[in-house]
Amino acid sequence: MSSIISPEGSLEVLSQQEVNRLQSTSQTGLHDLLRRCALAVLNCGNPSDDSLAILEAYKDFDIEVLQQDRGIRLKLTNAPAEAFVDGHMIRGIREHLSSILRDIVYIYNEIQHHNRFDLTTGEGTTNAVFHILRKAGTLKPGLDPSLVVCWGGHSISRQEYDYSKDVGYHLGLRDLDICTGCGPGAMKGPMKGANVAHAKQRRKGGRYLGISEPGIIAAEAPNPIVNELVVMPDIEKRLEAFVRLGHGIIVFPGGVGTAEEILYLLGILLHPKNAATPFPLIFTGPADSAAYFEKIDEFLVYTLGEEVRRFYTIITGDPVAVARRMREGIDEVAHFRREHQDAFYYNWRLNIDREFQAPFEPTHAAMKSLALHRNQPTHELAANLRRAFSGIVAGNVKEPGIRAIKAHGPFVLSAEPELMTRLDALLDSFVAQGRMKLDGQPYTPCYVLEH
Amino acid sequence: MSSIISPEGSLEVLSQQEVNRLQSTSQTGLHDLLRRCALAVLNCGNPSDDSLAILEAYKDFDIEVLQQDRGIRLKLTNAPAEAFVDGHMIRGIREHLSSILRDIVYIYNEIQHHNRFDLTTGEGTTNAVFHILRKAGTLKPGLDPSLVVCWGGHSISRQEYDYSKDVGYHLGLRDLDICTGCGPGAMKGPMKGANVAHAKQRRKGGRYLGISEPGIIAAEAPNPIVNELVVMPDIEKRLEAFVRLGHGIIVFPGGVGTAEEILYLLGILLHPKNAATPFPLIFTGPADSAAYFEKIDEFLVYTLGEEVRRFYTIITGDPVAVARRMREGIDEVAHFRREHQDAFYYNWRLNIDREFQAPFEPTHAAMKSLALHRNQPTHELAANLRRAFSGIVAGNVKEPGIRAIKAHGPFVLSAEPELMTRLDALLDSFVAQGRMKLDGQPYTPCYVLEH
Amino acid sequence: MSSIISPEGSLEVLSQQEVNRLQSTSQTGLHDLLRRCALAVLNCGNPSDDSLAILEAYKDFDIEVLQQDRGIRLKLTNAPAEAFVDGHMIRGIREHLSSILRDIVYIYNEIQHHNRFDLTTGEGTTNAVFHILRKAGTLKPGLDPSLVVCWGGHSISRQEYDYSKDVGYHLGLRDLDICTGCGPGAMKGPMKGANVAHAKQRRKGGRYLGISEPGIIAAEAPNPIVNELVVMPDIEKRLEAFVRLGHGIIVFPGGVGTAEEILYLLGILLHPKNAATPFPLIFTGPADSAAYFEKIDEFLVYTLGEEVRRFYTIITGDPVAVARRMREGIDEVAHFRREHQDAFYYNWRLNIDREFQAPFEPTHAAMKSLALHRNQPTHELAANLRRAFSGIVAGNVKEPGIRAIKAHGPFVLSAEPELMTRLDALLDSFVAQGRMKLDGQPYTPCYVLEH
Amino acid sequence: MSSIISPEGSLEVLSQQEVNRLQSTSQTGLHDLLRRCALAVLNCGNPSDDSLAILEAYKDFDIEVLQQDRGIRLKLTNAPAEAFVDGHMIRGIREHLSSILRDIVYIYNEIQHHNRFDLTTGEGTTNAVFHILRKAGTLKPGLDPSLVVCWGGHSISRQEYDYSKDVGYHLGLRDLDICTGCGPGAMKGPMKGANVAHAKQRRKGGRYLGISEPGIIAAEAPNPIVNELVVMPDIEKRLEAFVRLGHGIIVFPGGVGTAEEILYLLGILLHPKNAATPFPLIFTGPADSAAYFEKIDEFLVYTLGEEVRRFYTIITGDPVAVARRMREGIDEVAHFRREHQDAFYYNWRLNIDREFQAPFEPTHAAMKSLALHRNQPTHELAANLRRAFSGIVAGNVKEPGIRAIKAHGPFVLSAEPELMTRLDALLDSFVAQGRMKLDGQPYTPCYVLEH
Repeated sequence: MSSIISPEGSLEVLSQQEVNRLQSTSQTGLHDLLRRCALAVLNCGNPSDDSLAILEAYKDFDIEVLQQDRGIRLKLTNAPAEAFVDGHMIRGIREHLSSILRDIVYIYNEIQHHNRFDLTTGEGTTNAVFHILRKAGTLKPGLDPSLVVCWGGHSISRQEYDYSKDVGYHLGLRDLDICTGCGPGAMKGPMKGANVAHAKQRRKGGRYLGISEPGIIAAEAPNPIVNELVVMPDIEKRLEAFVRLGHGIIVFPGGVGTAEEILYLLGILLHPKNAATPFPLIFTGPADSAAYFEKIDEFLVYTLGEEVRRFYTIITGDPVAVARRMREGIDEVAHFRREHQDAFYYNWRLNIDREFQAPFEPTHAAMKSLALHRNQPTHELAANLRRAFSGIVAGNVKEPGIRAIKAHGPFVLSAEPELMTRLDALLDSFVAQGRMKLDGQPYTPCYVLEH
Repeated sequence: MSSIISPEGSLEVLSQQEVNRLQSTSQTGLHDLLRRCALAVLNCGNPSDDSLAILEAYKDFDIEVLQQDRGIRLKLTNAPAEAFVDGHMIRGIREHLSSILRDIVYIYNEIQHHNRFDLTTGEGTTNAVFHILRKAGTLKPGLDPSLVVCWGGHSISRQEYDYSKDVGYHLGLRDLDICTGCGPGAMKGPMKGANVAHAKQRRKGGRYLGISEPGIIAAEAPNPIVNELVVMPDIEKRLEAFVRLGHGIIVFPGGVGTAEEILYLLGILLHPKNAATPFPLIFTGPADSAAYFEKIDEFLVYTLGEEVRRFYTIITGDPVAVARRMREGIDEVAHFRREHQDAFYYNWRLNIDREFQAPFEPTHAAMKSLALHRNQPTHELAANLRRAFSGIVAGNVKEPGIRAIKAHGPFVLSAEPELMTRLDALLDSFVAQGRMKLDGQPYTPCYVLEH
Repeated sequence: MSSIISPEGSLEVLSQQEVNRLQSTSQTGLHDLLRRCALAVLNCGNPSDDSLAILEAYKDFDIEVLQQDRGIRLKLTNAPAEAFVDGHMIRGIREHLSSILRDIVYIYNEIQHHNRFDLTTGEGTTNAVFHILRKAGTLKPGLDPSLVVCWGGHSISRQEYDYSKDVGYHLGLRDLDICTGCGPGAMKGPMKGANVAHAKQRRKGGRYLGISEPGIIAAEAPNPIVNELVVMPDIEKRLEAFVRLGHGIIVFPGGVGTAEEILYLLGILLHPKNAATPFPLIFTGPADSAAYFEKIDEFLVYTLGEEVRRFYTIITGDPVAVARRMREGIDEVAHFRREHQDAFYYNWRLNIDREFQAPFEPTHAAMKSLALHRNQPTHELAANLRRAFSGIVAGNVKEPGIRAIKAHGPFVLSAEPELMTRLDALLDSFVAQGRMKLDGQPYTPCYVLEH
Repeated sequence: MSSIISPEGSLEVLSQQEVNRLQSTSQTGLHDLLRRCALAVLNCGNPSDDSLAILEAYKDFDIEVLQQDRGIRLKLTNAPAEAFVDGHMIRGIREHLSSILRDIVYIYNEIQHHNRFDLTTGEGTTNAVFHILRKAGTLKPGLDPSLVVCWGGHSISRQEYDYSKDVGYHLGLRDLDICTGCGPGAMKGPMKGANVAHAKQRRKGGRYLGISEPGIIAAEAPNPIVNELVVMPDIEKRLEAFVRLGHGIIVFPGGVGTAEEILYLLGILLHPKNAATPFPLIFTGPADSAAYFEKIDEFLVYTLGEEVRRFYTIITGDPVAVARRMREGIDEVAHFRREHQDAFYYNWRLNIDREFQAPFEPTHAAMKSLALHRNQPTHELAANLRRAFSGIVAGNVKEPGIRAIKAHGPFVLSAEPELMTRLDALLDSFVAQGRMKLDGQPYTPCYVLEH
């Protein structure tokens, strides 16, 4: 399919300079980034999670920015046909293209290639995250807390998917909205469920917020139900966006990506400065997934200590109980913020240590040198484990990660023996349960554990 | 659950006289009607289609109209718990309660107990149907034709249900809206599918129109996704509402109710006065249901003649083709109405003979005396077959019908031999395919064919 | 100007029968009524108040109802050019045409030529008034009390007009809306003032409600600022609409029409059943008009007794004080209705005696036989004085009144001597102050007082 | 009056850094600027145009930015009482406060103290103007051309004011919107007139756009009818905003400020690159003002040559003709932009020479050295005359200008003899007609012409 479309919303008014910058492909390299992200969005009907394979399948896809007819237009060549209905692009996808353009323009012009935010400091980083989200229209001052972040695997069973849909339905009946990382599985189910519930409750402004980043968007394309899409510059800022925007978090069964998210969040919540800040966190899945959460729970207690249990509730096989508990938790959050005159739309109060903010680039060397032992403060171990899982995600589904593994073989991780054993067991269980990749092929690990 | 709720929308401003009339239960009998319809609406989560059983299960349910606090309130006692979320009634259901009240008040005060409309004439009846629909806010002059009426069984297989959902999805992607007779199965699937598609297309004003009547509402309760509910006074006016509102009709597999609808519509379309009026009509189901439509097709050709095929297209196993064909058909309707300066919102031009309008009460005597032979004009045979199927629906799921069968045994139908054989085969196939009743029990026919 | 226009709003969906009835001019006489009202609305830029003269000036004006192009159209021939801007009718005027059609259709079909409302009883009449207002969309359940009815002369001085504008401005700043009887002078000033204030306060839904009746509309055409127009069937129902809708009333200087309104309202408020119902009423004008209100006050005290002063406050030369007092008064009304669970949008509680409801036809005989003496209960005298003033208004500006005076000479009024003297003085002062007619000619009274 | 208020709109979501910057008064000097602009907005009811006098009258006025209760608040101390109604700030004024804050924050952080825009180049300046207007929400891509910029004196006669109102009324009837420089007189009249017309035409989104700058806002405070307020950084960017946003310009009688605007615009239109760009320009006033425009016309022809007449039409005493001509002119603009695929909301195509963009600071030295002779290219003379008039405006009503004149005596202007004579005559006519200052005192010129 080739087509010329008009972007929606905030992009309608670009300055000539901004259009030129989008058009110039050579120096800044924005064009390649735009092309990759656009392809991801257009390809949302395709069930693959292999970024590299997608890029190769659509080698001749291209996107161009034209300035004409009182505004800009996007010229698409050889775009995936699934994005169109009888020749017209699905409007939700058109909006996503606009969002991508908006974020790429903003991030690269105003955040990254600019001295406005000092990204080497915590304050500068948090400020940059705030500005990206504000620019995207995500910070809505008039709304009561209602945003439930749902984490979990993109490669889950039908039963787990249906369960996540059911949880979304019961959240939606309670006027709660859904925020996920985009993609299929546990990121799509809750939105679909909530969408039906919002129709029944006549909730017109139901929010289905997707937060992605350029590295993951191809593997986890936003479903067109997502009606607010934000592309953060990297994985760490994306995680920060989740925890500063969300009023509560639900974790469904998942693989290494989910483990990364859990360790990120618990590493933050364990910080003494956050002790008084309420943050509802529920691990849930169908009754059959109970064993899964037992394993996670065991691993967390072993690595982060018994007190970590204080921060989460495990509920299995009971979507109504999950939704009720989350509603209560969010009511407490609302109460707390009112008392402290905190904003509803951005959790400024949450303390995030620098080690959870600094981007981690998963090279073979970096992976190898991660300190994976209990002879360090808890939150540092959490941070390092988070990095380890992050690297495995990259090796599984991200384009540069896949290329690196192809070139240099699997990442090598090294840890103290007991921790290694437990980590091994956890990762094996993800493999055994098919949580690593979507394609249904036998999984070839992108890592080895060096005992 | 007991609760006091405020009605939504048009009911907010009632005169004291109107409230009094709603409150007075004795003389006009409105209270009993209101109670039955309200129970149906509240009970929408329950999968039963046995009106009598539902009424007995909720013997102590009651609804009262109170006048207080600057408006009216509804006091519900012992209402089904499914209508509530944590003590609050689902807003869609609250709207349905309002719609029911609105229609009962309007129909009984202004249509039936009034000399304003002469219901013994075609013009008076069509006018009454128009006024009920206008009062319900269903006639929206600003909209382009988009309303697809979906007919089909409430008791269908999972595969057929998923197929109807898929068709609804592809209709919704093409900016089409759904109108059904409420209830589960083929009446719910297309709405759910269209709801997802409308979310993807950002179609804010998607219409999910349900048209019911007091006799059927308990067996086919409106799903809360229905965002416009109208209760017509009887089955014939409900059918007239479908064909005057809808811009096209899709028929999914179904049982006797569906057969009734097909014969009603074809009886009208066969009338010479309607020859030039475009009316897209598609019979569709999953590939596995192809045989079903062959049978229907055969029966129609036998009874109404070969030319009947001119009015419908059979498509199986291809939701996209169905949606495309319907979109084209509706575009033709729009073109035709523009050319003839006809209204988009009400098909005044369609000629409906008196025999399709006059209410048929399916007593044992009336059923027995139906003229079921080919020795009469085609449209008269269509009308009589329609009545026969209508009576069987009543015997299956409507409260007075069930009571009559309990008291006097099955209806007796008599027809000319060949027709009888074919009718027998058709009904047997409905029984064999489990299309008669929802409950999953072996089906005891409410009729016998007298050979 | 000749033109074909589409009506706005509720008229878009008429049944064929309703269109036919509008088209049929012979029997029901609706056409002539429609023509007269439409001319009044179109002629709103013209400063005349002489209905007969207007009709004669536009002898060849005609309006026709056409059914075409998916709805109805209005064909206007030889319409006043002021209603158009560069060939397009001003949208506010188009809405007024629709309102007129709506009310004429509704009133004549459903109120007057129908057995639905027993207009010979108080309850039936009040119910009819309610139904007309509801049909017109005037009863808005979601709004807090804010409707200030402004009465006063259509023929007032520039100073008085500016004062009324200033009062409207300060009411508007306090989020109050304006309801008047349409027409120029004190009926237009407050709306213009409030319109500016609402712009400053960003009050989007500011209401400018005009209530007219077929007899007066030609003399007091609605200004296009009026954004809700209702045509009541007669003067008495129009007065009832004012007092049931309005949350407070302000009276500016005026002539006999204003005197009629004052006597109507005080006659009602004096009824013991209304003793506890708060109803803010302010007489106001520029400081120079102080003498005017002294005269009125004197006349009221003489005819209705000292206690009548309890019901009104006189404030002169202080628009801010008027607006503040009215705001307080309306807050009391809101409090009272909340306490008594009364509707905000219609004052059901107010008792209106039959003699204030029954239409009075001011024939020479009826005028002559009015009992104008103090030897009767106060409210009866108020009712009779109201009728006397109403007759003089008819003789001044209404078409049949003017014709009757032309044919039979002035009305003769007879009263007891002292009352006659005072009435004489009051009427003379209206004449001397130029409050009787707009045209600036010396005023020839349409009445004589028989001593 | 002291009060704590919440800002409206875009200010609701500020980052902590932004709030801190607003709070910090010492270094950046924003606080003083904010205080002066806020006072101007709050003082809009006051008819003075003497910035210095206003500042002195409200010496103890202060504004503070507080961060509390989930957002920011503004604390006002000793604010002018006219901004409040019964203790509540008029909402339009509250919005203006927000606009001021928004623009001050944006301009000083992102435009002036930043390397993002190179304000020494034409492209950088035009880009900065674009960004300020976009940030203010002024660039609305969905709208057809409709913005009429009205220039003219703030100190004009009642007759001229009423005329400007009448022109605004007839523009409004033709669905045109108004943009002015804020302030009384010819800047207020057209908005008031258009507001009434928009009410009659039911134009909900009528735009009343005010463009000011910190130096002039105190003398020409925005009327609360202004529903979009932008504060540009200096007089030259304000002028550029007018000509890039406006689709046509109407000039009413005025004084030196108006003369400055005329010379600015004609200097631009005379540029060969703009020859093909349509730009409707009308000079108009009541019939009695005909002589005024004759003088202007003569002066323009003398200084800029006969061909300048090609760019404007003079119409006197005919508001309807003005409105019709402007509507036609704007339709041509729309046509032209469609043909050239130019944006409707920003006139990128217009060429503005650097000399019309570079800020001119009217010191005594700068004024004295202005080259006022015809021995230079026409557009350069236009630019220098523009500067001369700009300096006189500063000396009349701007705070630093008034201070400079107080300290050093009047500005000295020097020109070639014939030009000097004509300039003298023009300025004298402004003085004689009372167009220099509002206060009604005899005018003491802030300039002398050195012959």
